Amino acid sequence: MAAPAAPRPASAPPLPLALTMGEPAGIGGEIALAAWSRRTEQRLAPFFLLDDPRRLAALAARLGWAVPIETLDAPEQAAGAFGRALPVLPLGMAVEAEAGRPSSATAAAVIESIRRAVELVSSGRAGALVTNPIQKAALYRAGFPHPGHTEFLAELAGGGAVPVMMLACPQLRVVPVTVHLSLRRAIESLSVAAIVRAGRIVAAALARDFAIPRPRLAVAGLNPHAGEGGALGAEDLEIVGPAVERLQAEGIVAVGPLPADTLFHAAARRRYDVALCMYHDQALIPVKTLDFEGAVNVTLGLPFVRTSPDHGTALDIAGRGTASPSSLVAALRLAGEMARARLEAGAEKPAVVGSALA
Amino acid sequence: MAAPAAPRPASAPPLPLALTMGEPAGIGGEIALAAWSRRTEQRLAPFFLLDDPRRLAALAARLGWAVPIETLDAPEQAAGAFGRALPVLPLGMAVEAEAGRPSSATAAAVIESIRRAVELVSSGRAGALVTNPIQKAALYRAGFPHPGHTEFLAELAGGGAVPVMMLACPQLRVVPVTVHLSLRRAIESLSVAAIVRAGRIVAAALARDFAIPRPRLAVAGLNPHAGEGGALGAEDLEIVGPAVERLQAEGIVAVGPLPADTLFHAAARRRYDVALCMYHDQALIPVKTLDFEGAVNVTLGLPFVRTSPDHGTALDIAGRGTASPSSLVAALRLAGEMARARLEAGAEKPAVVGSALA
Repeated sequence: MAAPAAPRPASAPPLPLALTMGEPAGIGGEIALAAWSRRTEQRLAPFFLLDDPRRLAALAARLGWAVPIETLDAPEQAAGAFGRALPVLPLGMAVEAEAGRPSSATAAAVIESIRRAVELVSSGRAGALVTNPIQKAALYRAGFPHPGHTEFLAELAGGGAVPVMMLACPQLRVVPVTVHLSLRRAIESLSVAAIVRAGRIVAAALARDFAIPRPRLAVAGLNPHAGEGGALGAEDLEIVGPAVERLQAEGIVAVGPLPADTLFHAAARRRYDVALCMYHDQALIPVKTLDFEGAVNVTLGLPFVRTSPDHGTALDIAGRGTASPSSLVAALRLAGEMARARLEAGAEKPAVVGSALA
Repeated sequence: MAAPAAPRPASAPPLPLALTMGEPAGIGGEIALAAWSRRTEQRLAPFFLLDDPRRLAALAARLGWAVPIETLDAPEQAAGAFGRALPVLPLGMAVEAEAGRPSSATAAAVIESIRRAVELVSSGRAGALVTNPIQKAALYRAGFPHPGHTEFLAELAGGGAVPVMMLACPQLRVVPVTVHLSLRRAIESLSVAAIVRAGRIVAAALARDFAIPRPRLAVAGLNPHAGEGGALGAEDLEIVGPAVERLQAEGIVAVGPLPADTLFHAAARRRYDVALCMYHDQALIPVKTLDFEGAVNVTLGLPFVRTSPDHGTALDIAGRGTASPSSLVAALRLAGEMARARLEAGAEKPAVVGSALA
């Protein structure tokens, strides 16, 4: 794991956020330009892009957007530049990409952008990591050995990090305990240990990064009506219930298993801070139904704050300037809030921070 | 099956809706009183209750609600009475119930209310059936041999009826292809035949009862990302996809399998009239997230229109007058709209009506 950053005083100005390039043939560049243009109305904390400044200047010119680009020598210059230009920290290599056509020729730059961003956030030179979407197939062809973006980040973060995906929009936070598995395999792989592990990481992260000292976890049942006392499946009695009890025994505020269909309306949402869901669609259906464009993907369980827009590279519309920057804007705003909360939590209650990822 | 009603001219005034008593120890009586009080602002079609008029008058008096009760001799008097009083067609037996305490002593009346309502709607003396929630346990103790309300209705309707549950709110209609099964059993029981059967009934019902001549069906995938080409489960390729093709081959407008998480936001919903979902929570999470109080349960595939509020008997709050009548009001309004659409469809294109449940 990278050496932990020296503690910063709570009064220090927040560090700039590091935004990765992502797949340069995708929409990452144009949504970064668009997000910077909305920095004032959206009250975004200063961020800088790890990218090729010439590529971005050319992209802005081609789209006819008045977004000046400022090349940085160091992230410490980002906050000063942010008001007048989109600050870009160069990768030391030119990036040439054709919109909509990913190439393994740019894979090294995509990876270097992520690697350097993690280095900066780990060494306390950036406040949080925001990642633009990548195109995994292009990276695999260039020899990228990780199953995905998050696994690569966990490896860069050092051994022992257990990443947990959370989706957040202003109305709702959800965490799928199982993620990219068939529904059948999701049921088979569900265990007390998996739910408890996710619950612990989520509870610690909400306390540290969301300024919620005693977060309330609602745990969804796997089966309809949370199994109706066993009549509709045994897993809620045998797995979800015991996991909730284990979390409660550890002092975490958790209730469940709760019927998932009645868990996400406005009155129900007021009763918890995060919903732990048993499978992908149980978590993602409500959040994307409520706020399709503004949902943010947050990776909990890493030693640094990481958010990302909840969409892909959108190769089919890349280069036109029509892609909505809403999710990236929300990801930048949330990363800024989380970094600030972590800074304050670190100043006030180091014990919570220390135990959060133990 | 009951003898089909003689065709009515399209110019005839709509028939009154028959509302069953439901469990008299539950909230059915008070939400019926409350729904009648809102008949004008909610533009409800005339309805009558199949219940004990003295029980309802006593309930209104106890709650201090100014709802006059008018005892009918026949449903044909309901429309005339509806403006001045809640019309009640007596069951021929007194009903005495204590709020919150269901008893098998009232089971005969609960069943008689349903039986007579089906008789009236089947013989063309009522336009549609709206059912108040029942308490199955109390009926079982009295010898009720049906697994549930809907199965009883299907039996009363005569052989061959295949009931299909739809949940509807103003923003969304969903149909779960599998319903009250554990998630594991829902996956196991999913079949091309089950999806096709539901799709046919839904398409015919939307044409006939919702005035949507060419309804567009969106069919959700079972697995995350609709299986991602097989990487996340085979069922979407092997079951859902072939079912969609079969429906298309029959001339039904159907698309899918579609990823369920991106199927229910506002822009996605504009692209279809009903979403066919593979399991209970996939269907019920979005509809109850969008409109928890106003969702209506519609039973398609019966020879008559049937709706019901999407909640239970609420024994814990029965008798206080605090239960929300929103879902019953929505069920009454939708039943009225469906009955009118069916009447018009029947007058204009009997072929569609004839084939709908063949």
